[in-house]
Amino acid sequence: MSGEVHYRLEADVWVFAVNYKAYPNAFNNHSVRLAEEAARLAEEYSGVRIILAVPAPILYTAASEYSDVWLQHVDPYGYGSHTGYLPAEALGVLPARGTLLNHSEHKVTLRHLLKALGMVKQAGKEAIVCADTPEEAAAVAVLGPSMVAVEPPELIGTGIPVSKAKPEIITRAVEAVDRVAPGMPVLAGAGISGPEDIVKALELGARGVLVASMIMKAEDPAARLRSVVESVERARKR
Amino acid sequence: MSGEVHYRLEADVWVFAVNYKAYPNAFNNHSVRLAEEAARLAEEYSGVRIILAVPAPILYTAASEYSDVWLQHVDPYGYGSHTGYLPAEALGVLPARGTLLNHSEHKVTLRHLLKALGMVKQAGKEAIVCADTPEEAAAVAVLGPSMVAVEPPELIGTGIPVSKAKPEIITRAVEAVDRVAPGMPVLAGAGISGPEDIVKALELGARGVLVASMIMKAEDPAARLRSVVESVERARKR
Amino acid sequence: MSGEVHYRLEADVWVFAVNYKAYPNAFNNHSVRLAEEAARLAEEYSGVRIILAVPAPILYTAASEYSDVWLQHVDPYGYGSHTGYLPAEALGVLPARGTLLNHSEHKVTLRHLLKALGMVKQAGKEAIVCADTPEEAAAVAVLGPSMVAVEPPELIGTGIPVSKAKPEIITRAVEAVDRVAPGMPVLAGAGISGPEDIVKALELGARGVLVASMIMKAEDPAARLRSVVESVERARKR
Amino acid sequence: MSGEVHYRLEADVWVFAVNYKAYPNAFNNHSVRLAEEAARLAEEYSGVRIILAVPAPILYTAASEYSDVWLQHVDPYGYGSHTGYLPAEALGVLPARGTLLNHSEHKVTLRHLLKALGMVKQAGKEAIVCADTPEEAAAVAVLGPSMVAVEPPELIGTGIPVSKAKPEIITRAVEAVDRVAPGMPVLAGAGISGPEDIVKALELGARGVLVASMIMKAEDPAARLRSVVESVERARKR
Repeated sequence: MSGEVHYRLEADVWVFAVNYKAYPNAFNNHSVRLAEEAARLAEEYSGVRIILAVPAPILYTAASEYSDVWLQHVDPYGYGSHTGYLPAEALGVLPARGTLLNHSEHKVTLRHLLKALGMVKQAGKEAIVCADTPEEAAAVAVLGPSMVAVEPPELIGTGIPVSKAKPEIITRAVEAVDRVAPGMPVLAGAGISGPEDIVKALELGARGVLVASMIMKAEDPAARLRSVVESVERARKR
Repeated sequence: MSGEVHYRLEADVWVFAVNYKAYPNAFNNHSVRLAEEAARLAEEYSGVRIILAVPAPILYTAASEYSDVWLQHVDPYGYGSHTGYLPAEALGVLPARGTLLNHSEHKVTLRHLLKALGMVKQAGKEAIVCADTPEEAAAVAVLGPSMVAVEPPELIGTGIPVSKAKPEIITRAVEAVDRVAPGMPVLAGAGISGPEDIVKALELGARGVLVASMIMKAEDPAARLRSVVESVERARKR
Repeated sequence: MSGEVHYRLEADVWVFAVNYKAYPNAFNNHSVRLAEEAARLAEEYSGVRIILAVPAPILYTAASEYSDVWLQHVDPYGYGSHTGYLPAEALGVLPARGTLLNHSEHKVTLRHLLKALGMVKQAGKEAIVCADTPEEAAAVAVLGPSMVAVEPPELIGTGIPVSKAKPEIITRAVEAVDRVAPGMPVLAGAGISGPEDIVKALELGARGVLVASMIMKAEDPAARLRSVVESVERARKR
Repeated sequence: MSGEVHYRLEADVWVFAVNYKAYPNAFNNHSVRLAEEAARLAEEYSGVRIILAVPAPILYTAASEYSDVWLQHVDPYGYGSHTGYLPAEALGVLPARGTLLNHSEHKVTLRHLLKALGMVKQAGKEAIVCADTPEEAAAVAVLGPSMVAVEPPELIGTGIPVSKAKPEIITRAVEAVDRVAPGMPVLAGAGISGPEDIVKALELGARGVLVASMIMKAEDPAARLRSVVESVERARKR
């Protein structure tokens, strides 16, 4: 299983995954401006991989500006009679490079996870599987996602960064995942509010972060994205 | 409640609602060709209202070709932290004229239905609420949707048309809905395979039909849409 | 549909439905003492019908002391391969006189509701279907339950009684239910804390109440049950 | 995590777990006769551990006859406002020695699984967590249940025994579980119809079996239980 891991992050690249969630800015003009800015930043900075997880109706619009656009969820179905669901099989033709799965706000059964992951891989796409705890992170790592994101739900949206308030969650998750799936990148999330929280997460062994309100609730999300990327890149160069 | 009904169909217009579901053609080029054809047919025929219920990722593309595009489902949420869900409140800015709710393949609680319907109305949009039986049709009619669609699940996708195999489902649903919400349009669905099944449904008191495979599994969905509309319109003129 | 209503309350009897929920007292000795006290009260007072909705593991124990014991939920299944579910069909052999359905803490789809209600009736048992609002109350009344209970979820467990804080919820629910199912008894619930709240609910047109913490969180639930019944009965005789 | 494993099977004992499911015999007199027979067999045969997973309403009745009675499911809740759910915390006072979790017919999220498992352990009880595949078996083994049961869903209830039709499912599950949780017992299930299927499963490395229809659909479930136990014990002695 750990042998099937689809994606390995290049050694010196960190992941900045931005979950648009269903905030107002996910559906208005900021959604596309953010994609445009991500495209510019990707040109300028080779040390960071920016992933934008957008709502389904925005997928094509965002993907026309930026190539590393993801979905926030897919359902464990092939094509067929599934009214109002987003079948994982459709990833084969949709312009999403991957999908989040099992997010804290969208928990699924292991059966769902296994079926969806199988279809994601079949389509040649990637999946970040989320987990509440190091234990859950290890369990999902066994299934062979591209990356695992650990987010203690009690900190999500609080502005209290996991990397400061509960650093042991990150270190334990990194260890636990590494034991069952050596080398699988672990992202950290929940409460991440500024560049210093990101730097701290990377120092703790995370290969990147999964954020939402930090960017999406900013007055100017695109400007905020640039400012955070630049700060983290400066810090990493020191 | 029945006083709040948002939409009333003009006396002589029938509804042809096409549910794209998650068939392959819902995600490929046929999805937009169908929207283009619907736009042409809407110009030519004033006696039919064509509704296209598309998958969320296709919404903007389809809506750029045709104005009466709907979603297949919305979740009972306002904007916010709802990763991978489609908040009903976003209908306020999305180019969908309405949404299906409680489809046989996507059943929801009454609480979900009430919250979503409230937000749909707030956004000035419409909702077709689906029901398995005349009893369920009457129950959902009480909540004040724009229209009710009755579809016996055992016939969905079979090619055995409800209007022929179980005509009493349609007549009983029309009566039951009329008792609690006088004048609310009832659509019929399940197994509808040809223009004659539609004509029969209209004769039984339905104000239109909700179909899927009849169009979506056709070799050329757009051509099939035109041919069916033309046949029904010819029959209605006789 | 309204013609199928299974149960009609005798004119001068009010319903005191006690939902054990999953409080500690639902699983310890108080659970059976409450049943014993209900049996005594039923002997003494003919003007009240006491219903005890117990957790499934307590059903036989409680039913051996008192005849009007109910379940808190049943699943819409016949006998068969349904691990960990309580099939509605089993009501035919279980010593429960009825079941709650669609409780605020256990919302179900309309399809679930219709199937379960059909099996409840088939088994000759009763069902109280819960609703958040007058609109939902009317919708479920259409399905023909024995009684409807309206409980605004924002007041459940708060100690702020619906009959005082939102009396119009009760009067509107009574009217809305009566319109679609004339004569169907409506119970009121949420925040009911003392006998005066019950009397007020009855004055507003409710035929009874559905309570939980008022009894289950009392130091001595059985003594509390007696005291409340006696107070309400005294007030009604005045 | 693997260090937290609560239960280790004695070297020479196999597990015969009987899931009553919701078959008619789970709710009638056979349910208690089966418990009586299990008690007698447990006296006579020290090489087998018989576990009976009963429906919640039957728990006390069965437990009064036999000590190794389990529940089929618990919900991830502490005591409180959880109408119609069976809170895992109540295991502390209920006469169940353990519970199944994540059965093929009752799949849950990983979050549910982790919370429920934590409470099961807190109460000093055991849990068998079910899995469809060797991959899912490894994932749940990471969470530290007492045992893991692997059951390919496509064979459940078919009478085609997994140990004959897909022996590699058992061997792969045993290996995969052992890699992440050394020594954790793996049970096999699905289609097990006779003593020879059990013997074969044990030979493949399973430490026992999880069965249902083989016993519950027998004309005389108690007699069938005895006959199967005796056959397997005879075979093991050879």
